[in-house]
Amino acid sequence: MSLAAPFSAAADRGAGTGQGSGRLSEAEVIALAEKYFDRPAPDLIKGIGDDAAVVAGRAGLNLWSADILVEDVHFERAWSRPEFLGRKALSVNVSDIAAMGGRARFALLSLALPAATERAWLEALFSGLSRAGQDYGLSLIGGDTTGSPGPVMISISVWGQAGGAAAVLRSGGRAGDRLFLSRPIGAAGAALALLQAGREPQAELKRELDDPRAEFELGPLLGESGLVTAMIDLSDGLAVDLGRLAQASGLAGVIEAEAAPLWPGLAEAAGSLGRDPLELALSGGEDYALLLACPEAEAGRLEELVERRAGRRLLAVGRLEEGRGVFLSRRGRRSPLRAASFDHFAVRTR
Amino acid sequence: MSLAAPFSAAADRGAGTGQGSGRLSEAEVIALAEKYFDRPAPDLIKGIGDDAAVVAGRAGLNLWSADILVEDVHFERAWSRPEFLGRKALSVNVSDIAAMGGRARFALLSLALPAATERAWLEALFSGLSRAGQDYGLSLIGGDTTGSPGPVMISISVWGQAGGAAAVLRSGGRAGDRLFLSRPIGAAGAALALLQAGREPQAELKRELDDPRAEFELGPLLGESGLVTAMIDLSDGLAVDLGRLAQASGLAGVIEAEAAPLWPGLAEAAGSLGRDPLELALSGGEDYALLLACPEAEAGRLEELVERRAGRRLLAVGRLEEGRGVFLSRRGRRSPLRAASFDHFAVRTR
Repeated sequence: MSLAAPFSAAADRGAGTGQGSGRLSEAEVIALAEKYFDRPAPDLIKGIGDDAAVVAGRAGLNLWSADILVEDVHFERAWSRPEFLGRKALSVNVSDIAAMGGRARFALLSLALPAATERAWLEALFSGLSRAGQDYGLSLIGGDTTGSPGPVMISISVWGQAGGAAAVLRSGGRAGDRLFLSRPIGAAGAALALLQAGREPQAELKRELDDPRAEFELGPLLGESGLVTAMIDLSDGLAVDLGRLAQASGLAGVIEAEAAPLWPGLAEAAGSLGRDPLELALSGGEDYALLLACPEAEAGRLEELVERRAGRRLLAVGRLEEGRGVFLSRRGRRSPLRAASFDHFAVRTR
Repeated sequence: MSLAAPFSAAADRGAGTGQGSGRLSEAEVIALAEKYFDRPAPDLIKGIGDDAAVVAGRAGLNLWSADILVEDVHFERAWSRPEFLGRKALSVNVSDIAAMGGRARFALLSLALPAATERAWLEALFSGLSRAGQDYGLSLIGGDTTGSPGPVMISISVWGQAGGAAAVLRSGGRAGDRLFLSRPIGAAGAALALLQAGREPQAELKRELDDPRAEFELGPLLGESGLVTAMIDLSDGLAVDLGRLAQASGLAGVIEAEAAPLWPGLAEAAGSLGRDPLELALSGGEDYALLLACPEAEAGRLEELVERRAGRRLLAVGRLEEGRGVFLSRRGRRSPLRAASFDHFAVRTR
């Protein structure tokens, strides 16, 4: 369920293969975008291929990201309360800025609405957006609105500033770096799997899917620390997003099965689906936790800083090593992970 | 055919009335957006209600705009060559930045594509976008892409910088100011009227609709001059957009019928449609000319500056006066104009 932006140089290129001759996969669209749009500019530090674009400014680094939510691809009106949808549309963008070590400041909204949209639904959407803006400390300052002959489409772009002197790219990881998550994973993926199986998840579980919280405070703190070498937010699941970080850094990512911080209720939810909790956590998306790399020698300092400044505990999940790909290490045995990525070009059907 | 962004505090509020009980008009959506999103921030100079948002920065003023193009609302694939569509998606945003007296620097693209989209079509779209970026001197540095279960949707947001010490808002006009257009108007509106009547416009006329040119050089020049009190780009036709500028400035706008600079081939096109050329020029949209106000005492200086620096001639079109509304002055007689605005919530049907 990626909302990665800008166009991510995805680790799963080729994974979302087109079905039928004329059908384009998401990876093919991204490859075309890179071909046509990879144009340098003097103050452009990072364009296509990370969570946000980075532009140098006199007052620091500008971060800029856009994400689009399309009805029946990213959400269904029957499953999603509009106030949560509004929150989520903003959260996924704020998460992209946080994953660069930055703080989101302003947002623009472009909205396409079917003629039959009800006023109450729209008010709830706007209310959710507005409250999320307050929670995250950002203002929605403009946009565009139009009719849609088809689905609801919510496109948001967010501008922010880097917390530190540099933005934290996906590509800065070094061999030997430890990998941390900002919080346990798997709840949103489990909720979606239950819904897709025609079952209603528990309210707490569903909330994780409907209303993910962007790490809007931790992200800038990590950026300011200067101790984080690489970072990404988890939109498509740990396996896929670690693959992106590892590939951008020219390294292999290793997940320690025993360490992987799973959401507390995951075992029960996975069990009821007949699935392995770890597999569900690795492949499920929409966690919006931060995945970050930190040199071994600095890890203690970083953990201490995060505990002191944010009252949070970073969760160890693995390591970056020489090589390529993503591996799962379980009881000392290592096996390659074949990441199953969500292809947004496959329209969701009930 | 407005692509006005940010949410424009439209002069035509109430013009696009909902048809049927549950149906929202564009004006109602904008009113709701203003209700929920009008939140101040210390460095926010202008939020919702102008061509672009304005945020103060240490290196000058940041301008930020978003526009969305939806298939069967803003374009039809059968009428629009994809390379022109790509150009236009960028041009309308660059025009918004130019209308603030600014220069567009970077763009993000969010794109929703139906499964049946052909690679050649997408390549042509990207090629048009990429070339337009080169022409306008801006880089596309990120975005997001996804599938669509319905129409093609192209959402672009553009970031730019003000040419002068201040951005040129819609609201700065003063009674007595002269009004100028940057170029003759009416061609795009005539082309659209012909298409809607089932007729094929001449190539030159159709080009004005398909490939409008943003005033990307003149806009910043006008901003730098410090002589322009208010400005807007014409997306919905002179009558509607002058109404917006006049309303934002708390004044009335008067169009001198004899002065109105009509596109040279307009009389012929209007005649073949049995319509009055002036009426077509006033109500037709998508001109993307700049409409600007300048104090009478400075008008000569401004005209001279534009001629010297840009080799262009500003075209006088009327005046701002005390009062409210938009008027047409013809042979000394003045009549109020009832602006027929395009409601994007009325999905276009063939």
